[in-house]
Order: sequence, then structure tokens, then C-alpha cells
Amino acid sequence: MTLPLNPAMAATDMPPVMEARRWLAGAVFTPERPLINVSQAAPVDSPPLGLRQALAEAALNDPAAHIYGPVLGLPALRAEIASQWSAAYGGAIAANQVAITQGCNQAFTAVMSTLAGAGDEVILPTPWYFNHKMWLDMQGVVTVPLATGRSLIPDAAEAAKLITSRTRAIVLVSPNNPGGVEYPAATLTAFRDLARAQGLALIVDETYRDFDSRSGMPHDLFTDPDWPETLIHLYSFSKAYRLTGHRVGAIVAASPRLAQVEKYLDTVAICPSQLGQIGALWGMRNLSQWLAGERAEILSRRAAMISGFKALPDWRLLGCGAYFAYVEHPFALDSDQLAKRLVQEAAILMLPGTMFQPAGNPDGKRQLRIAFANVDATGIAEMFRRLAALKL
Amino acid sequence: MTLPLNPAMAATDMPPVMEARRWLAGAVFTPERPLINVSQAAPVDSPPLGLRQALAEAALNDPAAHIYGPVLGLPALRAEIASQWSAAYGGAIAANQVAITQGCNQAFTAVMSTLAGAGDEVILPTPWYFNHKMWLDMQGVVTVPLATGRSLIPDAAEAAKLITSRTRAIVLVSPNNPGGVEYPAATLTAFRDLARAQGLALIVDETYRDFDSRSGMPHDLFTDPDWPETLIHLYSFSKAYRLTGHRVGAIVAASPRLAQVEKYLDTVAICPSQLGQIGALWGMRNLSQWLAGERAEILSRRAAMISGFKALPDWRLLGCGAYFAYVEHPFALDSDQLAKRLVQEAAILMLPGTMFQPAGNPDGKRQLRIAFANVDATGIAEMFRRLAALKL
Repeated sequence: MTLPLNPAMAATDMPPVMEARRWLAGAVFTPERPLINVSQAAPVDSPPLGLRQALAEAALNDPAAHIYGPVLGLPALRAEIASQWSAAYGGAIAANQVAITQGCNQAFTAVMSTLAGAGDEVILPTPWYFNHKMWLDMQGVVTVPLATGRSLIPDAAEAAKLITSRTRAIVLVSPNNPGGVEYPAATLTAFRDLARAQGLALIVDETYRDFDSRSGMPHDLFTDPDWPETLIHLYSFSKAYRLTGHRVGAIVAASPRLAQVEKYLDTVAICPSQLGQIGALWGMRNLSQWLAGERAEILSRRAAMISGFKALPDWRLLGCGAYFAYVEHPFALDSDQLAKRLVQEAAILMLPGTMFQPAGNPDGKRQLRIAFANVDATGIAEMFRRLAALKL
Repeated sequence: MTLPLNPAMAATDMPPVMEARRWLAGAVFTPERPLINVSQAAPVDSPPLGLRQALAEAALNDPAAHIYGPVLGLPALRAEIASQWSAAYGGAIAANQVAITQGCNQAFTAVMSTLAGAGDEVILPTPWYFNHKMWLDMQGVVTVPLATGRSLIPDAAEAAKLITSRTRAIVLVSPNNPGGVEYPAATLTAFRDLARAQGLALIVDETYRDFDSRSGMPHDLFTDPDWPETLIHLYSFSKAYRLTGHRVGAIVAASPRLAQVEKYLDTVAICPSQLGQIGALWGMRNLSQWLAGERAEILSRRAAMISGFKALPDWRLLGCGAYFAYVEHPFALDSDQLAKRLVQEAAILMLPGTMFQPAGNPDGKRQLRIAFANVDATGIAEMFRRLAALKL
């Protein structure tokens, strides 16, 4: 007799990054041609020494680092976010409108749990971030794809056509994962107006905002004093301060929404890692100059990606920003097959567009995501040499 | 227009521990009569220096501490658990049958997500652990209460009567939270046989096993070579090594089950805290003698609780073990009202049985949970003085 298996979980895809790692098994990489891994969007270098020292000091001498903290996060971190982001976004965000989570994926699952249950619908622009899709699938929530065409920029008027009585939320990621595009402020405003008019939540995931190429505010959503009525904002500390292994993310939302989020987080997390929160707070207080340098480096890599694809006219760069380039390849081969051959024949690991598009969608078969943030100028040049030499 | 609220989340109770903390607001505690907080089951002292040094060393010098690890946890920690628990339980547990989670609450939500969706049923003995109930509620899974009477020991024959075509799992916690009772091995065997015969999962949460008063194996479930067909085992590193603030738990289950768990954990966690896992591994390798001392101290506090209640004949001690005493109080007052008055009139914070029983259940109104593990002999003596002096 076989044990029960939740059919919604059975119908959920395997984690794509794990799947891609399996392609590496059996491949041979040499010192002359090492693997160029552009599959995952995560810093590989350690945080700056000062942050590591702050973590070590807390581990040794701060008793609060080892005990439960409040479910919604350290008050000092919530207050720091409220203060810095009120200034950065030109609006009023209070500490009780901020919650800390065990990473930004968890932030998404927490807010979505308060919004939608089995049978409800949520609109995701395509290509989408696969963990968002996986959560909706395992919860029995219906994902409604919103095609974005070659611009990769979603259109609120097109989204409006998809809304039904079961729609609960629209999710935007800007700068976009996997698309790399930075959504214009007017796009975000149009979606906010649509969500407000329809009584939906607008979830805006700005995990990659610290690497936006634009200066100043990327949107004016928080300048609206009524933002808590519609907007739910998500953030990750993983990228800015290289804290991926510590799992710290954040939610900004109306305080009554966070009272619902608190039920979820109490049950799933109890509290976020205390050391991770201590690190995030130290970073916010001490690393703004350092982070500006990080951004400059990412922007120079972005420029190298853009000029590299200019020299590969058969490829088409659809979007490039934050950590990602999203491209159309020129080969008569589906992207999932191509991605495996790129490992074998070019020692490059990137993710196929099929992982970011609805099953069977033809666009995904032409597309690839290149998470270039960890590859320096030399590595990017080498990647383009290998792509140019590719004979398939 | 109000934003959507998932009705299942709206129907889920607020976290009881948070609720209880609110009772402290406005209460006045003096140096002569400080608060005795027996509401939460968590160590308050820091981990031993060696473990803290291991965390600090990793934070400073181990690059792996700061990047993503495998979704299912550090291979070395999974292997250590497999090895130590194979020996401790007299069975064969392989590393690929172990997964690490961001705390044991998350372990429960992960395995339950693979088993049951909205409309399915899960059997929980009462009194239950409230976060288990909260997860089932917010998922739309029906919790079927299994009354345990004054023994607090569930009866497999009674459970059998509750099974329907929608039943997916039975959940046991031993030593029990909140009941404090240690389930006899025969009880666990009977439930295993029932679950196997009915094709259900048997989830056994042994978060408090390191403080079991019995020597040797608490059950022989793992000696059955077919254990993976039925058994799912949960564990927490929070109590043994005082790692609550780091959030590390574990699942032992069949490897194909963990492939489903991996989808959930990738989406909700990506990976557990790397530092937390490093601490847990260091503890497993270095703190067995220290943990034996911790257990001895907890057992002496347990003895103090048992003798203390012998001197309060109007109170009835239903269960006492691990971190908990579970009692019937003698007052003509519901336990939730009594718990609030205990804060005001005796400066003691304990949780009422109403938080652990189905709504309206009369037993809960007579019961209280006392999480005594953090209170030393002097504190326990003082608590009993205050309870004896109580005039309501």
C-alpha cells in the first residue's frame, strides 16, 4: 500500500535549479575550460569582513542571537527598513508595516497564504519566477499567465482581461527575474490602479532593486498615502549583503495584513534566523557605500553582456538588468535540450526558458536565462568566445 | 474596497504564545516578585562556549556559511543524523532519508504539504500542539481530534474509529507537547500498525526526545526494515543544543517522500540557515556528554514539579515530562481567565488548556500547561509557594 501523496504537490514541478545541477553529473571540466555557471542568482563571495565580524561577535557574546525573537522580526531591523525605505521611496512606511522572513521566497508564500487558497487565481506575467509558480501549484491556486511578448514588460490593460471573480492578486518582479527588465514607473502605476479598481492585491517583488540601473526612485507607489490598501512589497537581503546562506527577506504591507502573515510565520518559521537579522541590520547601517560599489560592478557586467550580444547577431537579447540576461537563441533546438548541450559542449550552465514559461509555451523553447552577476569581465568575455564558437 | 483575505487563514487562530505575551502588558512585576514565565518551551541560556566559537569561526572564515546550501540540508549533517540515529534507534536510516529544515515547525508543514490538501483529514490527539492545528486550518485540512482522557495517552483503537476515506495521516508527539507524557513503545507500535493497515502516514514528532526520562530506545519503530513505508519522524535542534534562534529541525522519511518535501522547501526556504546547520553538526559531534547533563537537570526539575503538585492536592497533575507539566486546576474559572489572573495576582505566565483543545471542549477550561524547563529549583519552589497562596 502506498502512502498518501497530495495531488497538488505531485503536480508541482521539481526545483529547476536542482534539476539543472543534475546536468553537471558526468560532464568533464578542465582547468583550461572550467565550468561557467550562470544558472543561479546568488552572490558567491563572502560578505565584507565587518559584517562577518558582526556575526561572529553576536554568535559569541549576544545571548539574544540564540533564542527566539518576535515572529515578525527584530524590532530594530523593522524600524531601520521603515526609516530607510520611507526616505528611499518618498513615502510613509511604519515599522509595524514591515515583517522579516526566512528569505524572500518565504515572504511570497506568507503573503500569498493570506490572499489565496485552492481554486483562487493569481496573475503572473511570463516568463515567471519558478518558485512563485511552484507555490501556487502546490496550494491548488490557479496561475493565470500574462504574456509579455518580446518586450518582457507586462501590460495592465492585458492583465485586466484576465481578471475573474476568483482573481486575488497580481505579482510583479522588478527588476525582473528571469527577464532582467526594469519595469517603467508608469507600468507599476497602471498595475496599481488596476489592482485598486478591482480590489486585488498588487505584490511587487524588488529583490534586485539595489542593482537597478536607473538612479532615484524606481516607482512612486509608496508616495500614495493609501498604498497599504493595495500594495504588498517584497525584498531580499541575500543579494545586497551576500547573505544568501542566512535566509533573510522582508515584507512591507498593511499592518492588518501582517497580523495574518504572523499566523503563517509563527507556524512555518516561529522567527527568522537571529544572526541573519543581525547581519542584515549591520549591513543596512554600515554598507551603503560598499553596496554602491557592488552595484557599479554589476552594471559594468551588464554593459559587457549587452555589448557581447551585439557581437552575436544571431542571438537576441530580450532583457538585461539586475542579475539577468534573457535571450533568444538561434538554434533549431529546444532550450532545454540546448541547455544540456551547452554544459557538455561549452561548459556553460544556464537555465532554459522552458523553466520560466507555462508548459508547452513555444517562447520558452527559444529562450535562455543567463544569471551573469557572479561572472567578472574576463569570465563574460570567455563565455562569449564559447558561444561564438558553438557549432550545433 | 477591502483586499482579499483567504478565508482559511482568517479562520486560523492567532499564535497563542503571542496572545499570552499580550497579557503581560500593564502587569507590574517587582524585584521581590518577578515574573515566572512558564509559557514557552525554549531554552533561554546561550549554547555552550564551544558551539558559539564554532559559529563565530564559521561566520568569519567559512565561505560556505554565507552561500546557499543544498535544499535538503548539509550533507555532513544529514549523514551524522543518519549515523547517530541508526545506532540510537537500532535501525537503518540512510543520509538520503534525512532532510534539514528551518526548525521543526517547518518540518511538519513540509511533510504535511506532501500528504494532505484542502478537504483531507488528519488525526491529532488532544490536547494538541497548536502550530500543528494552525497549519491544518490555514491549509483547509480538517483536523480530527482524538480525545485522550485523563491519561493523555492516545488509543489506536479509538483512532481507528475516526478514519475515513479522506484521512491522510496521524500525528503523534512524544514526549508530548503540551501533555508532558512519554508515550509507551506499545502505543507507538499500535499506531504504526494501524497506519500501515490503513495506508496512512504516521508522523512522530520527537522534538523533546533528548529529555525522555526513560533510558534506551523510546520505541522500536526504526527496527522495522519497512519503516519508510509508514513512518515520518520529526526532530528539533532547538532544545538539545539551545539553537532556537537559529531555526534548525529535521525530517526522517522515505527518500521519495523527501523528493516531494524538496519542492516545498525549495519554495519556502531554499535552504536552512547554514550557520544553524554548522552549529547543529558541531553539537552532535561534541555535546553528547553536555546534553546528558542537561537532561539530568531537566529530570530533576521534573521531579520537583511532581513533588510540588503532590503538596497541592486540589490540583491534578495529568502529565509531566520533557519540558511540560499539564494540570487540572481547582478553580471555578475557565483556564483562559485563570491564566490572565495568574499574571496579575501571582506573576506567573502559563498557557491555558483552551489553547490546546478544540474550541468549546470543556477539558481545556480546566487545564493549564506549565513549561517548566527554564525554571530552576528555586524558581519552581517559588512558583509552588505562589500557587499555594492563591485565593480566587
